[in-house]
Amino acid sequence: MSVTHGHAPGCACGIDVHAHVIPHDLPRYVGNRMPADWPSMMPAHACHRHVVIKGSVYRTVSERAWSPSRRIADMDPMGLAVQAISPMPELLSYWMEAQAAAQLLRYMNEQIAEMAALSAGRLAGMGAVPLQDLDLALAELDYLAGTLGFKAIEVGSNVNGKAIGSPEFAPFFAACAALGVSVFVHALKPAGTERLVGPDKLLPALAYPTDVGLAAASVLTTNLIGRHPGLRMAFSHGGGTLASLLPRLEQARQVFPALRDAMLESPSEQARRLFYDTLVFDAATLRHLLDRFGPTQLMIGTDYPFAFHDARPVDGIAQAVHDPDVRAQLVTHNAARFLGLD
Amino acid sequence: MSVTHGHAPGCACGIDVHAHVIPHDLPRYVGNRMPADWPSMMPAHACHRHVVIKGSVYRTVSERAWSPSRRIADMDPMGLAVQAISPMPELLSYWMEAQAAAQLLRYMNEQIAEMAALSAGRLAGMGAVPLQDLDLALAELDYLAGTLGFKAIEVGSNVNGKAIGSPEFAPFFAACAALGVSVFVHALKPAGTERLVGPDKLLPALAYPTDVGLAAASVLTTNLIGRHPGLRMAFSHGGGTLASLLPRLEQARQVFPALRDAMLESPSEQARRLFYDTLVFDAATLRHLLDRFGPTQLMIGTDYPFAFHDARPVDGIAQAVHDPDVRAQLVTHNAARFLGLD
Repeated sequence: MSVTHGHAPGCACGIDVHAHVIPHDLPRYVGNRMPADWPSMMPAHACHRHVVIKGSVYRTVSERAWSPSRRIADMDPMGLAVQAISPMPELLSYWMEAQAAAQLLRYMNEQIAEMAALSAGRLAGMGAVPLQDLDLALAELDYLAGTLGFKAIEVGSNVNGKAIGSPEFAPFFAACAALGVSVFVHALKPAGTERLVGPDKLLPALAYPTDVGLAAASVLTTNLIGRHPGLRMAFSHGGGTLASLLPRLEQARQVFPALRDAMLESPSEQARRLFYDTLVFDAATLRHLLDRFGPTQLMIGTDYPFAFHDARPVDGIAQAVHDPDVRAQLVTHNAARFLGLD
Repeated sequence: MSVTHGHAPGCACGIDVHAHVIPHDLPRYVGNRMPADWPSMMPAHACHRHVVIKGSVYRTVSERAWSPSRRIADMDPMGLAVQAISPMPELLSYWMEAQAAAQLLRYMNEQIAEMAALSAGRLAGMGAVPLQDLDLALAELDYLAGTLGFKAIEVGSNVNGKAIGSPEFAPFFAACAALGVSVFVHALKPAGTERLVGPDKLLPALAYPTDVGLAAASVLTTNLIGRHPGLRMAFSHGGGTLASLLPRLEQARQVFPALRDAMLESPSEQARRLFYDTLVFDAATLRHLLDRFGPTQLMIGTDYPFAFHDARPVDGIAQAVHDPDVRAQLVTHNAARFLGLD
C-alpha cells in the first residue's frame, strides 16, 4: 500500500471504508433444502449481471462490483489509495436459515479475500458473519480474523428488526474488541418505511439514514462502547440521523432518572468515540458532524459502486474542511486507524 | 397583547408556538357506546390531576396544564409574551371512532378558547380536528376559524400510521391555506419504536424526532407546500431528523429519475418554506437549522408544561444567535407571522 501524505484535492491518498462487493457468481447451495431467498447471479447486458432473489431481479450491477482492476482504475480519479470492500448489505442474509447464511457468507468472505489478494494492497477485506446465530457468527469471526487476516467486518443496523445495540449482540462485539476487528454498521431493512410517501427510492434516501441513526442510538443507550473501550465501531451515511437525535437524547438523560440510570455516560461523549463515514453529500452537514463527533472520528465512505455513490469524496472533504491537518485525518488517518492499516 | 421590541436575554417578548393544554376535567361521552379509549381526569396530589386512559394513568399533570394565571406567571421568567396553546397530542384521538373524537376535540377547542379569552392576549388558541374523517375535520376547521377565531391548529406527524404528507390529507390542508389557518405538526405515535433499546422515555427522546423528520419529508416528497403556497406549516422539535435527512434526499433526487419526477422542486428549497420550532436543546444544532432552513422559519417551541420542556427558550436563542435582527426573528417575528398576530 502506498499512502502518500499530500492532501490537496486530486491526491490519491484517501481511504474509503464504505464500498461494496457483489461477486460475478454466487455459489449453488450445498444441502437438501435450499432457502427460498438464496440469491443467484444471471447474465445481463455487456459487463453487467443481475442479482436475482426469489425469482426477481433485486439489482443489476456492473463489473465494478466484482473486478479488482476495474475498481482500482476508478479509485485513482476518486482520490482513493485504499478501499475497504464489504458485501452488498442485502447479501448479509440475517433472515436466512443460519447454516445456509453461514455457507453463503463464507463464500462472500473468500471472494473478498481473493479480490484483496489481487489488489497489491489497494483493497482491504471487510467480511460478514451470520449474526442471527451467535455461535456461527463467532466461528466465522475467528475464520475471518485468523485465516483470512481481515481487520474489519460489516454488520447491519439491525438483525431481523433488533437494533445492533441490543444486549444479545454484546458478546459478539466483545469478541471483535478482543480480536482487534473493527465493526462497520450499515443500514439494512430499515424502520420507518411505512412513513414514506413516494417512489421506492425513498427507502435508501430516507429510511436508511433513519435506521442508522436509531442503530447508533441503541449503541449509546446500552453503553456498548463504554463496556468495550477497545471496540472500534463505525456507522454508515454519517451516522444517519444520529446528529439530530443526540442533543435531545442528552437533554432527556438530564430530565428522566430512568435514562440517567440506563446511560452510564453522556451520550454525546460516547458518540465521540464511535466512527462515522462522510457520506452526507453536503459541506455544512459534514462540518456539523465534525463539530459533533470530533476530527478523529470521520472517514471517507463512498458506497461505490452503486448509482447513489459519492464519486468525489476527497474533493467533498476539501470543500468542507479548510484545516489541512483535519482534512488529512478525514481523508486518510482516521480510516487507517479504524482499519488497522497503520 | 404587548410584544415589545427589545430582545436582550431576559426580555418578555418571546412567542412560543409549542405548548400544551390538558383541561382540569374531561367531559362525559354523550352517546350510547363510549369508546374504550375515551380519556378522563382523576384527582392526584395537591394541584395535580391524573390523565386516565383505558383505566391506567397516562400522565400526571399539574395545574400548569389548565390554569391560565399559573401559566402566565411562568411565562414572564421564560421571556414569553405570548404562548400558543394546543392539546396534549395524546388527546388528538385519531384512533378513536371519528364522531366520538369530534365530540372530545370540540370540548378541547372550547376549553382552549376559554383559556385564551381569560389571558388578556397572552395565550393564543391552537385547535385540533378529527383528521381520521375528512368531512368532520373540515367541519371542525370551519368552527375553529369562523366561530372561535383560531389562527392555527395542531396535527399529528401521522394519522393512524399515515404520514401527514399523504395525499389523502391534502384537501384538508388546502382548506387551511384558504382560511389562513396555520398548521403545527407535532410528533405522535411514532415510527421506529421497535429499534429503541432501553427505558420507555426513549420514545419521546428518539422516536418523536424520528417521526417528525419523516413527516416533514413526506410533505416535501408530495410537494404540499408548492401546491399550496399560502399554507403555513410548522414542525415540532426543530423538524426532528429532517436536517440530517435533507442533503441525502436532495442527492437522491439528482440520482434517481423517479424521485426527480416525484419532487417537482428541490426538497432543500421546499424545506426553507416550512416553519420549525427551536426545541433542540443545543446551540450548535440551532445554528445548523438556521443555516439549513433560513432565519425566517424558526420560532420558539417549549413543550411547556411537561417535564421535558425548555424553560429558557429566549436565553437559548441568545446563546446560539448573535445577530440581533436574526435573534428578534426567532424570538418574536417569525412566530407572529406564523400565528397571524401581526
